[in-house]
Amino acid sequence: MSEKRTELSALGEFGLIGRLAEGIKTQNETTIKGIGDDAAVIDAGNHFGLLAADMLMEGIHFDLSYMPLQHLGYKAISVNVSDIAAMNGKPEQVTVSLGLSNRFSVEAIEALYEGMKAAAKAFSVDIVGGDTTASQSGLVISISIYGTVEKDKVCYRKGAGINDILCATGDLGAAFMGLQVLEREKQTFLANPNAQPQLDDYQYIVQRQLKPIARMDIIHELAEFGVVPTSMIDISDGLASECLHLGANSGVGIQIYEDKLPFDRQTYETAVEFNIDPITATLNGGEDYELLFTIKQEDYVKLEKHEDIHFIGHTQALEKGNFLVTKSGNQVALTAQGWNHLNIK
Amino acid sequence: MSEKRTELSALGEFGLIGRLAEGIKTQNETTIKGIGDDAAVIDAGNHFGLLAADMLMEGIHFDLSYMPLQHLGYKAISVNVSDIAAMNGKPEQVTVSLGLSNRFSVEAIEALYEGMKAAAKAFSVDIVGGDTTASQSGLVISISIYGTVEKDKVCYRKGAGINDILCATGDLGAAFMGLQVLEREKQTFLANPNAQPQLDDYQYIVQRQLKPIARMDIIHELAEFGVVPTSMIDISDGLASECLHLGANSGVGIQIYEDKLPFDRQTYETAVEFNIDPITATLNGGEDYELLFTIKQEDYVKLEKHEDIHFIGHTQALEKGNFLVTKSGNQVALTAQGWNHLNIK
Repeated sequence: MSEKRTELSALGEFGLIGRLAEGIKTQNETTIKGIGDDAAVIDAGNHFGLLAADMLMEGIHFDLSYMPLQHLGYKAISVNVSDIAAMNGKPEQVTVSLGLSNRFSVEAIEALYEGMKAAAKAFSVDIVGGDTTASQSGLVISISIYGTVEKDKVCYRKGAGINDILCATGDLGAAFMGLQVLEREKQTFLANPNAQPQLDDYQYIVQRQLKPIARMDIIHELAEFGVVPTSMIDISDGLASECLHLGANSGVGIQIYEDKLPFDRQTYETAVEFNIDPITATLNGGEDYELLFTIKQEDYVKLEKHEDIHFIGHTQALEKGNFLVTKSGNQVALTAQGWNHLNIK
Repeated sequence: MSEKRTELSALGEFGLIGRLAEGIKTQNETTIKGIGDDAAVIDAGNHFGLLAADMLMEGIHFDLSYMPLQHLGYKAISVNVSDIAAMNGKPEQVTVSLGLSNRFSVEAIEALYEGMKAAAKAFSVDIVGGDTTASQSGLVISISIYGTVEKDKVCYRKGAGINDILCATGDLGAAFMGLQVLEREKQTFLANPNAQPQLDDYQYIVQRQLKPIARMDIIHELAEFGVVPTSMIDISDGLASECLHLGANSGVGIQIYEDKLPFDRQTYETAVEFNIDPITATLNGGEDYELLFTIKQEDYVKLEKHEDIHFIGHTQALEKGNFLVTKSGNQVALTAQGWNHLNIK
């Protein structure tokens, strides 16, 4: 190791990725887009291939005390499918690499795989390989995904023009509030192992945390309606963070409106119960795995009646900055306070 | 978790993979070959795509007390390239997912990346993405690789006919003996931290362990000589184990000859020094990352003068079994005693 020592926490996840990516030059003509989007883009001749990877680590991304292994398997596939969806692509194949400690029985791993198979069926993706090895501590799930997209349909984080309409799917903040409920129930259980979990009133938000569903339905519908977004990203780290990514990559500013933000009633009520500002949950809660995209104004009429696509704002000139306009008409600067998986303990 | 508990060690790595693969059906027309070869094969229109993944775990696959991070980075890419080589393909893109604990500094991860970039350059492969996250235990390196191959040039583990010639590249057993030397020096160092490592006499085999080089040179030469192997696999778990895989997948028996097995003099001498039968190191030592393949007899003349391709045996009818013929003419049954990364501690 070299003499100088910079702590990883000093850079954070995005900082580290940026530093490592420095000096990486692509050399193959088939590499259309390398590091820096939801998936890499590969020229496959008549179409583009898409390649992405996500790793889930026990104790960082999931807690097996409340995460059933079947749900975890489903989620592991779903979050990778979401990366392909964010490129406007269709998932085709995944590899699954597992690091396993002897805490796990064959039956436990089969339960994990059952969830993966269910997700593979739901998203029409084939499990085609991977690796299985021992782990000295917790469970490691590393998945790579390959997908395809027509060359004239691919969506990058870049591409938004000024005055494009900003769209978000589904509702936001639910997965974050579901996590708060699960953490509270865990603490209750640790204090009193006879306590029964009280989850009946939180089923929707808990499900959003445990079993997110990648929005391939939206991708198929955009194709049906003849809409190709000008830019797109999936919402994994929180809406505010993704708005900033989309804006920075496209060279535009973003303006969103509080009264347009989509949240579910259970999310709202649970946030109030937890003394969390519902807007904070919506803006900064992670793991929604919804889609954020921009469309040209002329495409608005094609989507305006869609129940699950919400028109939350618009792009603007870069120098106008990134703002949330509150219900009272105030402008609040958008800041990323999403998940940072390099908060290393 | 279910009530029945079967320990992972009861199945082993190949047994577990087999059990998990049961019931996995592929559904996409583009999936030409799923689980069960060195890489999955994807129909990309004018050519085949190849997709593979390998995960390296600290404490299982590498020991940072003697593995320099730059070498580790190089090796992590190289072993994945080897999977593409084994399909007779050309590597194009890789994703790199890292699990990091706070033991590592930014400079340490940069050293790891330096090795990866060097390998990426050497093998003409682009690093196009991945994931970076915290790890509660050691370093986790999970890589996926995408490559391409002409449709009429792809090589599977299946495909060998009876009386094909069995070829192995390079020399075998060196990486295994290199590991023994490194382990011995580690023990010496632990007993006496002032001891200087004595590696001068073992440079070749230590290098083979620390920095294996995927045999893309052989793949390019096979193309130049106009030879398409009838079957191929890379030698990662030991020659005997790979012979059995190739034979089982092709539905043939394998006969190899002791006096044809390629080993390096340093490997031989070190094995003798360690009281290890050199044949055992050659047959069962892992991590050589050489290639094992079969060719039709008529192709022999095209390769016979190649210095680094060795004709070690031939295929035969399945019912004749799998044997090593010793120098004294005895037949010894081939058994797999290669690495089992599910030997969970």
